[in-house]
Amino acid sequence: MKTLRDIGEDALIARLIRLAPRDPAPAASPGDDCAVVDPGPSSTTLQLLKTDALVAGVHFLPDTPAREVGWKAAARVVSDFAAMGGRPERFLVTLALPPETALAWTENLYRGIGDCLQAFGAVLAGGETSRVPQNSAAVISIAATGSVRREHLVLRSAAKPGHALLVTGTLGGSFAGKHLHFTPRIREANWLVSYFKPTAMMDLSDGLAKDLPRLAEASGCGFTLDRAALPLTAACTMEQALGDGEDFELLLAIEPARLPALLSAWSAEFPELRLTVIGRLVESGQGETLQGGWDHFGGP
Amino acid sequence: MKTLRDIGEDALIARLIRLAPRDPAPAASPGDDCAVVDPGPSSTTLQLLKTDALVAGVHFLPDTPAREVGWKAAARVVSDFAAMGGRPERFLVTLALPPETALAWTENLYRGIGDCLQAFGAVLAGGETSRVPQNSAAVISIAATGSVRREHLVLRSAAKPGHALLVTGTLGGSFAGKHLHFTPRIREANWLVSYFKPTAMMDLSDGLAKDLPRLAEASGCGFTLDRAALPLTAACTMEQALGDGEDFELLLAIEPARLPALLSAWSAEFPELRLTVIGRLVESGQGETLQGGWDHFGGP
Repeated sequence: MKTLRDIGEDALIARLIRLAPRDPAPAASPGDDCAVVDPGPSSTTLQLLKTDALVAGVHFLPDTPAREVGWKAAARVVSDFAAMGGRPERFLVTLALPPETALAWTENLYRGIGDCLQAFGAVLAGGETSRVPQNSAAVISIAATGSVRREHLVLRSAAKPGHALLVTGTLGGSFAGKHLHFTPRIREANWLVSYFKPTAMMDLSDGLAKDLPRLAEASGCGFTLDRAALPLTAACTMEQALGDGEDFELLLAIEPARLPALLSAWSAEFPELRLTVIGRLVESGQGETLQGGWDHFGGP
Repeated sequence: MKTLRDIGEDALIARLIRLAPRDPAPAASPGDDCAVVDPGPSSTTLQLLKTDALVAGVHFLPDTPAREVGWKAAARVVSDFAAMGGRPERFLVTLALPPETALAWTENLYRGIGDCLQAFGAVLAGGETSRVPQNSAAVISIAATGSVRREHLVLRSAAKPGHALLVTGTLGGSFAGKHLHFTPRIREANWLVSYFKPTAMMDLSDGLAKDLPRLAEASGCGFTLDRAALPLTAACTMEQALGDGEDFELLLAIEPARLPALLSAWSAEFPELRLTVIGRLVESGQGETLQGGWDHFGGP
């Protein structure tokens, strides 16, 4: 009997989405960071939709402070809105918790969600609570709506061979705690789409080794990676930078002619945050391959 | 240490929603079946948002056919759109499953979700998959957007003392299988809001004993219940009709003067489905109380 562990996440999703009716002409492909809804040509904005989940024992541990778990649960979703060039708006929070969960833990979880919503100008619109059987893992599922100005929308799929690849911040080290405290790159993404609109963009959730091939493939390209240029988080190896996952930095592609102006304007606007050229897109079938990164069903 | 089992679902939600920023002037109160988003006075429709979850061992059993689980997961959400007088549009499906889950089971789950989306004209817009630890309960969380014509929106809160209380269909017997095969009352609800707009409406998910007091309280009323009039599912007791939960029938309030015309038009339009007067709303503090129904953290 074939199980989810055997097939892996990307192949699973590819099989599942064929089994339900879909928008016949979606504004973004199923693999993008958010679904995109076009309300019609008279609307200057597009609606973004996103869902995500945190699972106890997988994305956080029993002793992780609940307020940090809440921040992470909401910030992961906010990061996906950044990846599209948009902003988060309304959140729906579904908690599936064992009945023995402490009320204080649950309240602190919500405070952490609230911290993140407050920080990024979003609001709680609704929710649902259910128990899971005793000793079963808690699941925190967050869905949200957001919006993006029509001309600011960035997909993963519009980059071309020759475009430069860049990442914000540093990579690796999520296990050491960064995955609980990261800042979704909303401000940076909104600046980018306003002044140096990337040809493709995504947030790094499963590790560069998993996510870079996804972006390249969505744009019908191969890629080359300059490993020596990778911006490593302090005390991290290159392997960690490629494979830890949960960096929640932006990976973006841009036309090479715009690179000097971008890098100069960036360091004036965001002096505290690195923006690093890590490689470039090449013709499909050329370039290199990467192994590793986080698979949601392959882990321990 | 106080746990979720000690406090119960309604009190938990009341505490949690105070801990995150909310829409300062929401178009519906937090207790309604869906959140309501008003895009502005120029829009003839309002957006509806809903999230819900099914948990293995709580809402379905290991031997429940996966396609029925999928139908139920989506149909519960569709039922909430019916309760507001609206229609479902775009679905986001989050699966948190043990890695040992069979691929075939997961595909059948999605087929069941697809059956329901197809039946009610909705589409799959996105999703997320994650593993839960081995032997942990599967969680299927579904969020969706929908819409309702501005003049058709029905809340729980606009009924008044003296208004008649009605339910569609029959109550009780969900454990015998009805909870897997029910038909969300979209067609009936859309007819009601077009021709006999209820002053309050909700879907019965936690049992009349739990849900009727919620509707009455949201409208600032008490209620009287004519137990002898309750439409019982075949082979069900009155206790089951009050307490089983998961009926997914509509509970609605209407001005008494409109009752004769409604009942007559209903039986012409829906000859196969009962619509039964089960009581009326009275002044707050009067009437009766009900015990029982489903509490999400109080069960075994």
